[in-house]
Amino acid sequence: MTTSTARVPQEERTRAMRQRLMEATVELLVERGFSGTSTTLVSQRAGVSRGAQLHHFPTKDALVVAAVAHLTEIRGSELEAAVTRLPEGPGRTEAVVQMLGDHFASPVFTAALELWVAARTDPALLEAVAPLEQRVGRETHRLTVDLLGIDEARPGARELVQATLDLVRGLGLANTLGDDARRRRRILTQWARTLEASLQGPEVASLGRGRPRTSTTAEKESP
Amino acid sequence: MTTSTARVPQEERTRAMRQRLMEATVELLVERGFSGTSTTLVSQRAGVSRGAQLHHFPTKDALVVAAVAHLTEIRGSELEAAVTRLPEGPGRTEAVVQMLGDHFASPVFTAALELWVAARTDPALLEAVAPLEQRVGRETHRLTVDLLGIDEARPGARELVQATLDLVRGLGLANTLGDDARRRRRILTQWARTLEASLQGPEVASLGRGRPRTSTTAEKESP
Repeated sequence: MTTSTARVPQEERTRAMRQRLMEATVELLVERGFSGTSTTLVSQRAGVSRGAQLHHFPTKDALVVAAVAHLTEIRGSELEAAVTRLPEGPGRTEAVVQMLGDHFASPVFTAALELWVAARTDPALLEAVAPLEQRVGRETHRLTVDLLGIDEARPGARELVQATLDLVRGLGLANTLGDDARRRRRILTQWARTLEASLQGPEVASLGRGRPRTSTTAEKESP
Repeated sequence: MTTSTARVPQEERTRAMRQRLMEATVELLVERGFSGTSTTLVSQRAGVSRGAQLHHFPTKDALVVAAVAHLTEIRGSELEAAVTRLPEGPGRTEAVVQMLGDHFASPVFTAALELWVAARTDPALLEAVAPLEQRVGRETHRLTVDLLGIDEARPGARELVQATLDLVRGLGLANTLGDDARRRRRILTQWARTLEASLQGPEVASLGRGRPRTSTTAEKESP
């Protein structure tokens, strides 16, 4: 009994310590960027000894990758929780699209951006980041498909989901140079309308109604 | 006469030297990132003495901002030149959108990305980068409107142009972690179809035809 009750608080303390280290890392990535983030600064901010920090995360890369993965998971869960507050019916597409826009304008996106850009010129870091990036990409895609109730078997539907996610990624990048919330919301309001209209038509690719469709490019993927 | 003919080659040599410095800077930003780029490395690669380099660009920030501005202008001119090769008629929207996609996947985008991300946590650099970024943004927007022959007075049209540019920015960012050309082209093919259909309808915001429009959000900006 004594061993067991002693172990639980110890595990709890370890978990809390790892969490403080990861949160401090994300804060520093946002405030000072990848090159301005050091393990010494992280230990200081988290109130964790250098020894303990090195025990849990032996290198800066290990710490940064774990921190961004951890926070991305938390934000993913928050995103899924927010789903329950989304309206059904007419306003849903816009609510989903704006939620994704806010998600990609959050500090976690900024921290991940620092990591991606650093990984671009650092092969060891890239090896650790690429699988995380792929997994997060797949999960966000899946979540978006579910939230919007999209049938990906329809030609063009999958590409429109991908475009939505690349659009919010681009808006997230623009937002890092200055608060861009008003512009973002206006753009996403229009995109939600366009997306909804595109996905509601009899077929996704066949949207032209102002004039007859003559483009061969536009017919390549039609059923 | 002698003075005048001597001055022209001197000006020519100065111009060529500045150009070599700026090109070496962009190459190093792409290969090593902002933090891995030093004025010493730039001088070496450009084959320019440290003294001459410091005379033209006294700081790393001055050099990097000038280099990205210069290359962005060159790429802007290239983009405008490419316009003459664009088809008229049905395939034009896709050709424009794919051209923008390629533009944002180029090394100049990567160099600019390094600069933006560094500027995010460096107020002095941000002060130099922000006006450049705004000017480039305005010019690219204007060019896209012209190329697609868009009437921005139509509600929603301006937002769809902005969305197109934020989409290619997001795709450009995705491309920095690995060649993403196939996925990009597929997404942009669908985007071009959707954009064309949206801009050809009687009004941009009124796209729903699968069911009656009941969303109040979707009607906020309607005329």
